[in-house]
Amino acid sequence: MKAKVYVTLKSGVLDPQGKAIQHAVELLGYTGVVDVRQGKYFEIALDDSLDDAGARESAERMAREVLSNPVIEDYRVEIEG
Amino acid sequence: MKAKVYVTLKSGVLDPQGKAIQHAVELLGYTGVVDVRQGKYFEIALDDSLDDAGARESAERMAREVLSNPVIEDYRVEIEG
Repeated sequence: MKAKVYVTLKSGVLDPQGKAIQHAVELLGYTGVVDVRQGKYFEIALDDSLDDAGARESAERMAREVLSNPVIEDYRVEIEG
Repeated sequence: MKAKVYVTLKSGVLDPQGKAIQHAVELLGYTGVVDVRQGKYFEIALDDSLDDAGARESAERMAREVLSNPVIEDYRVEIEG
């Protein structure tokens, strides 16, 4: 069982790293790039003895308590069989 | 038009950051975590004048040339209308 966790900055939070990437790609000649925001991505392999609901619960808890900072970040969890 | 780019380490490449997270969650009492790998995630807002194919081409090129290191990383691009 595999869990995928996506952590992104909340919409109001400044993202200087994303802005730096946006500026860099503009300098490199890419056009039409309106905004870039960087987030984090985790692939978590979970014990196969867990069922779908158990895996989701465990991954959500990890995302909330360990992988994200709830003050400035949102997270999303996907479970793959 | 929004592009989402996921950058992950190729499967043979060691991921010490992922291993550190795995070790940390084990110490925190989470059980059943077999493996953790960390990747990067980018949300790129593109000019609406681009059509679907143009947006994908532009995002793929950015992912290949700027956002990933093709020696050790793979990337995946998703386009949202």
